[in-house]
Amino acid sequence: MRIRPRNEVQRIKQRAHYDEATVHAVLDAAWIAHVSFADAGGQPFVIPMLYARVDNALLLHGSIASRLLRALGEGVPACVCVTVVDGLVLARSHFHHSANYRSVVAFGRARPVTDNDQKVAALAYFVDALLPGRASESRAADRNELAATSLLHFEIEDASAKIRSGGPKDDPADKDLPVWSGVVPMRTAYAEPVVAEDATPGVAVPVSVLRLLA
Amino acid sequence: MRIRPRNEVQRIKQRAHYDEATVHAVLDAAWIAHVSFADAGGQPFVIPMLYARVDNALLLHGSIASRLLRALGEGVPACVCVTVVDGLVLARSHFHHSANYRSVVAFGRARPVTDNDQKVAALAYFVDALLPGRASESRAADRNELAATSLLHFEIEDASAKIRSGGPKDDPADKDLPVWSGVVPMRTAYAEPVVAEDATPGVAVPVSVLRLLA
Repeated sequence: MRIRPRNEVQRIKQRAHYDEATVHAVLDAAWIAHVSFADAGGQPFVIPMLYARVDNALLLHGSIASRLLRALGEGVPACVCVTVVDGLVLARSHFHHSANYRSVVAFGRARPVTDNDQKVAALAYFVDALLPGRASESRAADRNELAATSLLHFEIEDASAKIRSGGPKDDPADKDLPVWSGVVPMRTAYAEPVVAEDATPGVAVPVSVLRLLA
Repeated sequence: MRIRPRNEVQRIKQRAHYDEATVHAVLDAAWIAHVSFADAGGQPFVIPMLYARVDNALLLHGSIASRLLRALGEGVPACVCVTVVDGLVLARSHFHHSANYRSVVAFGRARPVTDNDQKVAALAYFVDALLPGRASESRAADRNELAATSLLHFEIEDASAKIRSGGPKDDPADKDLPVWSGVVPMRTAYAEPVVAEDATPGVAVPVSVLRLLA
C-alpha cells in the first residue's frame, strides 16, 4: 500500500504495516467492521457492519438505517476500521497497561452492487465470513431476497495495519516492584449450539459448527 | 436519551433502546471503542481506542497518532461506536444469517483532560476497565507519566443502543428445508497467563487474573 498522510501511522511506527498481505490477513480474521463517514455538515457516523473481503475490497452489509447505507453508497469518503483483540497486557504500572491487538484502518469509497449474480455471490461470502463452510450448507438468496438486500462494494484505496504483540514494556525503575506482569491471551470461544425453536426436526448439527467447536 | 435524527435507529426499530441504563450497560461490557470524526475536508477517520465510562461520558485513551488525538480534542463533532458480539445466528437461508450483538452509537464532542488528579483517576479507570480490580494491584501514574498521557473526555450528547438476541428468523417457506438452524453463542475466553520476560521473581498470579480464569 502507498503511504500517504491519511494512512501513515504517526505513533509507535514499529507497529505499523503497509504491505497488502498483512492488511488482508487482519481483515480476514474478523467479520465486523466499523464504517465511518460524515454528512454534509461534518457530522460523523460510525456503525458496525458485516463484511467480507474480496481481493482488495470489502463487501459491506449491515443492519443499518437505509439513510446511512444510502449516504455511504453515494460514494462519500469513507473509513473502515477492523480490530481484533488478542490479549490483556498487564504491566507493573497503570501507565504501561495495554492490549495486544491487530487492527486495520482503510480509506476508500463505497458503491452499491446491483448485479444479481454478484449479490448472490456476496451473500454467500458473508455467510462464509461468519462461519467458513456454512454457505454451501444453506439456501442461496432468491430473487425477492436480492431485491431486499442492499450491498456495498468498498474498494480499499489506502490502508495501514497496526499490530501489538508480546509482553508489557515496564519502566526499568519498576523492576523490583512486587507486582505481577505479563499477558493474558484472549480469543473468541464458542459455546454449545442452541437449536432454533422452529428448527426442521431431525437435522444434525452441521460440519461447519462442529469444526468451530472442535 | 432524547431521540433526535442523528441517533434515531431507522431499521429494525424493535432492536433500538434509548434509555440510559441500557446504553450504559452495553458501554460497560467492553473496553474498545471505535471513534470517528472528520477533518475539514470531510475525510472521516475511525480508530480503535481504549475507553472507560464515567457517568454519561467516556474517557478515551488510545495508541493513536497525536495528529488524530489533537483533532479530536479540539472538539469537532465525534461519533463513538461500541459493539459486543454474542453469537452466530445460523438460518436455513443465506439471507437470514445474522449475528447476535449489542452495540451503542454515541454522538458528542471530546475535550482534553488536563487536571493531574483527574488524569491519575482516569488511568486507574482504564486499567479497571481492562481488568476489574487490576488498578489497585499496580502502580498509579507518576508526574512524568501524566505529562506523557493525552486523555480525552467525551460527553455523550445523544446515543442509541441496538440489541439483537435470540434465534434466526427463517422464512416460513423454508420450514421443511433439511438445514440446521440455531445460534452458536460466542464469548471472550482467556487463556493461561504468560508471565513477562522481565517479571519480578516470586510474584504470584494476582486475584484479578485468577478471577478472569475462574
